Amino acid sequence: RGPLTVIAGPCQLQSADHAQMIAGTLQEICACNGLNFVFKASFDKANRSAHDAERGPGAAAGLGILRDLRKALGVPVTTDLHLPEQAGEVAEAVDLLQIPAFLSRQSDLLAAAAATGRPVNVKKGQFLAPWDMEQVVGKLMAAGGRQIALTERGSSFGYNRLVADLTGLPRMAETGCPVIMDATHAVQLPGGAGHASGGRREDAPALARAAVAVGVSGIFLETHEDPASAPSDGAVMQSLSSMPALLEQLARLHRLVSSF
Amino acid sequence: RGPLTVIAGPCQLQSADHAQMIAGTLQEICACNGLNFVFKASFDKANRSAHDAERGPGAAAGLGILRDLRKALGVPVTTDLHLPEQAGEVAEAVDLLQIPAFLSRQSDLLAAAAATGRPVNVKKGQFLAPWDMEQVVGKLMAAGGRQIALTERGSSFGYNRLVADLTGLPRMAETGCPVIMDATHAVQLPGGAGHASGGRREDAPALARAAVAVGVSGIFLETHEDPASAPSDGAVMQSLSSMPALLEQLARLHRLVSSF
Amino acid sequence: RGPLTVIAGPCQLQSADHAQMIAGTLQEICACNGLNFVFKASFDKANRSAHDAERGPGAAAGLGILRDLRKALGVPVTTDLHLPEQAGEVAEAVDLLQIPAFLSRQSDLLAAAAATGRPVNVKKGQFLAPWDMEQVVGKLMAAGGRQIALTERGSSFGYNRLVADLTGLPRMAETGCPVIMDATHAVQLPGGAGHASGGRREDAPALARAAVAVGVSGIFLETHEDPASAPSDGAVMQSLSSMPALLEQLARLHRLVSSF
Amino acid sequence: RGPLTVIAGPCQLQSADHAQMIAGTLQEICACNGLNFVFKASFDKANRSAHDAERGPGAAAGLGILRDLRKALGVPVTTDLHLPEQAGEVAEAVDLLQIPAFLSRQSDLLAAAAATGRPVNVKKGQFLAPWDMEQVVGKLMAAGGRQIALTERGSSFGYNRLVADLTGLPRMAETGCPVIMDATHAVQLPGGAGHASGGRREDAPALARAAVAVGVSGIFLETHEDPASAPSDGAVMQSLSSMPALLEQLARLHRLVSSF
Repeated sequence: RGPLTVIAGPCQLQSADHAQMIAGTLQEICACNGLNFVFKASFDKANRSAHDAERGPGAAAGLGILRDLRKALGVPVTTDLHLPEQAGEVAEAVDLLQIPAFLSRQSDLLAAAAATGRPVNVKKGQFLAPWDMEQVVGKLMAAGGRQIALTERGSSFGYNRLVADLTGLPRMAETGCPVIMDATHAVQLPGGAGHASGGRREDAPALARAAVAVGVSGIFLETHEDPASAPSDGAVMQSLSSMPALLEQLARLHRLVSSF
Repeated sequence: RGPLTVIAGPCQLQSADHAQMIAGTLQEICACNGLNFVFKASFDKANRSAHDAERGPGAAAGLGILRDLRKALGVPVTTDLHLPEQAGEVAEAVDLLQIPAFLSRQSDLLAAAAATGRPVNVKKGQFLAPWDMEQVVGKLMAAGGRQIALTERGSSFGYNRLVADLTGLPRMAETGCPVIMDATHAVQLPGGAGHASGGRREDAPALARAAVAVGVSGIFLETHEDPASAPSDGAVMQSLSSMPALLEQLARLHRLVSSF
Repeated sequence: RGPLTVIAGPCQLQSADHAQMIAGTLQEICACNGLNFVFKASFDKANRSAHDAERGPGAAAGLGILRDLRKALGVPVTTDLHLPEQAGEVAEAVDLLQIPAFLSRQSDLLAAAAATGRPVNVKKGQFLAPWDMEQVVGKLMAAGGRQIALTERGSSFGYNRLVADLTGLPRMAETGCPVIMDATHAVQLPGGAGHASGGRREDAPALARAAVAVGVSGIFLETHEDPASAPSDGAVMQSLSSMPALLEQLARLHRLVSSF
Repeated sequence: RGPLTVIAGPCQLQSADHAQMIAGTLQEICACNGLNFVFKASFDKANRSAHDAERGPGAAAGLGILRDLRKALGVPVTTDLHLPEQAGEVAEAVDLLQIPAFLSRQSDLLAAAAATGRPVNVKKGQFLAPWDMEQVVGKLMAAGGRQIALTERGSSFGYNRLVADLTGLPRMAETGCPVIMDATHAVQLPGGAGHASGGRREDAPALARAAVAVGVSGIFLETHEDPASAPSDGAVMQSLSSMPALLEQLARLHRLVSSF
C-alpha cells in the first residue's frame, strides 16, 4: 500500500493569496509526514441551503486562481463541477474533477467529466448505499473514465443528520477504485442551523482516524485559518493550526495499518 | 378546499400515441370524479441507476409530444428539467415545471425555473427534512417564483429503501405552498434491484389514500397500461386498469376530508 | 369489515376517579360513533427516560382501579406488563394484555402473556421491521396464544425521532392479526427533551386519519383532560376535549374506507 | 490511558469444556498482547428472533460453568441478565453484569443490577442516541451503581440493518464511563435471515480497528472455533483462529493512539 492521500483546502475559494497560504501550509505538513497532498477548493457552491448564501468567485476567476496555484506551488489541485458544460474548462485547470454528492447520479455530468480524460472523484450521495457506487463507476467507465476515486461523506440518518457507515468503505473499495473518507462533510448537520448547515467540527478528527484504521486510500478535510469566519461549512472545518498534529496522527496510523 | 389534483402519467415518454392514450384515459377518469388532472411524463431520465438504461426521447422530440398533447386534449402538462439551460424551452411547452428530487438544492436550476414565470413543482430531496423546503421556496421566490408546489417522494431510510413520513406533509404546507404526495416514487427501493431501482407497487394505493386523509392538495402517480414493460419505474407503476377504482377512492376520501 | 376499535386512555393511571372520568367520556363518544372502545392505562411506567420520573400506582393499586372500572362501566380494559411473573394477575384484571415495544422480543414475557389465555396486543419494537412481527406472533402461538393484535408505534429514524411507515401496516396484517396504529406514541421524540421524551402532539390526528385510510383495525390514542399536567407523555397526548371531533372523523373515514 | 480491555467469548454457553477452551485461548492471546481480558458468555438468550431457537443452559447450569471457569482460569467473567430477580445470583457468579440493549431502559433491571454492588455494563439500545445514555447512567447511580461501562452495538438504520456511529463513542464517554465497542453485534442484520438475525462477519475487524482508533476503552467480540455451527450469532462471530492476528492489531493500534 502506498502513502495516504490528503485532499484538503478551505471549501470555498476566497482569494489567490488565501488559497496559496492554505495550500502552502498543507503542502509542507504533508511533505513532512510522507502524505500525498491534493489541494481542494470550490469556485462555486451551487447548492447552498439558502438563496442569499455566498457562492464563491465563479468559474473564470476561480479556475484562474487554481491554475496559478498549481503552477506556483506544484501541487495537484481538485475542484467540483455542477454542469456538464463546465467539464472542459475545469479539466483544463485542475488535476482531478470532483462530482458533488447530490449530483452523483446525474448521468450527463458523470459522462462529461469522464470524457475529459482527467481522473474523477465522485462523492457518494447521502441517499446511496455503498454498493450503489458500482453503477456510478459503470457510468464513468462507459464514458471512457479510467481513473476513478470514490468518496464517502455520510448517509442520511433521520432528518438533519448524517451518519458515516465505516463498514461501507471496504464495500466501495470492491469496485477497484481508491476510497476516500471526507471526514468534515460527514459531520455536517444538513439544514441543522435552519438557514444553513450546522456541524460537529470536534467529531471529524476521530472519524478521520477511524477511516484510516479501516484502511482508506485518502482523507478529505476542509480547513481554514479561522473557521468561524469561513464563507461556508464553518461548523465542520478544522482549524489550520490543528492540521500538523492531526495529519501526523493520520500518517502514523496509516503506516501502522499498512503493516497489518 | 378545492378539488384534488392528480398529476399522473407513464414516467417516461414513449411515443405521441402512447402519451395520448394514457392522458386521454386519465383525463376521462379525473373528469368523472371531479379531480383536476395534470399529465406528467419525462423526456429524459437523467439519473437512471445504470449507464445503459433507456433515457427517453430527449428534449426536442419529447417537448414536441407534450406540446401537441396539450393542444389536442386540452390537458395541462408537466415535465422535469435537469439543467438551467433547459428552463426556457421546457416552460414554453408545459404548464408546470418539475424539479427532480436529487436536484432540489441546485440554486441555478431553481432560479432558472422560477425565472420563466411558470409554476414550479419541486420534489423534496430524499436527503431533506420537510422544513428544509422553506429554503427551497426562498430560492424560488428570490428568483421571482410565485406559484410553487412541493412534492413528497420519500426520505432515505437505511440503504435502498425510502420511508414516507406523512407528518411531514403539514410541515411542508406551512410554507403556504400546495403539497403533493408522490405515492409511486415513495415506494421505490432505490438501487434495490442492483442495476436498477426496485419497488413495492402494491403499497402505493394505501399511501395515496393516507396522504389524502392527511389533507394534501394533490397526488402524483405513475401509471402504465403494462407496468412490466415500461421503460422505467415499472416496479412501482400502477396499472392503468386500476386507476378508475383508485382515483374514485381518492376523490371520495378527499370530499370527506374536505368536510372536516 | 367490522367497526373500528379505539384503544385510548390517559397513559398512566392517576386515580380511580380520574380513570372513570376519562373512560366514561370516551365510552360515550365511541358509542355515539359506532366505535369499539377499550380503555388503556398503565399501572407502572417501567422504562421512563429518567430515574426520578413518576412511574404510577404499581400493580396492586393499579389493577384494582382497572378491575373496578371494568365492572362499573362495563368497558373492556387493557394494560401493559413488564415481567413474566405479572402475567397472571394482569390477566385476571383486564381483557387484553399489552406487551411494550422495548420488550416485544422478550420470549418469556410473550410466552407468559400468551399462556394466560387472554388476548395479547404487542407493540412493535422501534427496532423491528413490520415483517419481523411474524416471529413475534410465532412465539405467542407456540405458547398457546390465539387472539393476537399488533400495534405500530413508529420506527427509529435517526436519533431522538420516530417515523411511522404506513406501508408497514398491511405487511403486519399479513400475519392474520388485527393491526392497530398507535398515533400518539408514534409522534414521540424519544429522549428529545433531554431528561424525558418530547413529542409532536399536533401530528397525531393526521397520522390517525392516515392509518384509518390505509385500513387498520384500530387506533390507539393517549388522551388527558389537561395534557400539560399529565404525569407522562404529555407532549403527545390529545386533549380530551378534542376527542369527540377526532373520533367522529375517524369513524366516518373508517366507514368510507370499509366500502372500498 | 491504560491497556485496552477485550470482552470476548462464544455468545452462548455450550458446555464447561467449551467455555474453558475458548476462555483459555483468549486469555493467552490477551496476555501476549498486553490486553485486559474478560470472558463473556450468555446462559440464556432471552430474546431470540424465533420461538424455537436454542436459548442456552439456563441460569443454574450456566452460572455454575462461569463460576468454575473464573476459579479455574482466574479470568474475570461477565454475562447478561434479563430480569431484576436474577441480579443477585448473577452478581454472585460473575465480575461484571451486562444489561442487554433491548432492556437498556428498564428501570427495575438497571436498579437491581446496580444494587448488587457489581460493576454494570449497559449495551446501548438500538433505539437510543449516544447522549440518551446519560439518563441510563443516572438510573444506575440513583440505585447505588458506581462502576459503569457503556457499550455501543449499533443503531437502527432502516429495516433489518444497524449502523455504528463512531462519533457517538466520544459522546458516550462524556458521561465519565469507559466506552466499549461491540464490533460483532454491530454488524448484525437483525431479522435479516427471516427466522433469525443475519450478519456481516467480515466487517467486524474493520469496525474494531476503527473504534480503537477513535479511542475506546474496550472492544467486545464474539468468537467461536466454528462460527457456522455456533448456536447463535454465527453470522457475525469471528473465528477463534483469526483472533491472534486481530487482537494483536488492536493492541498495536491502541498503543499508537494512546501516544497521541
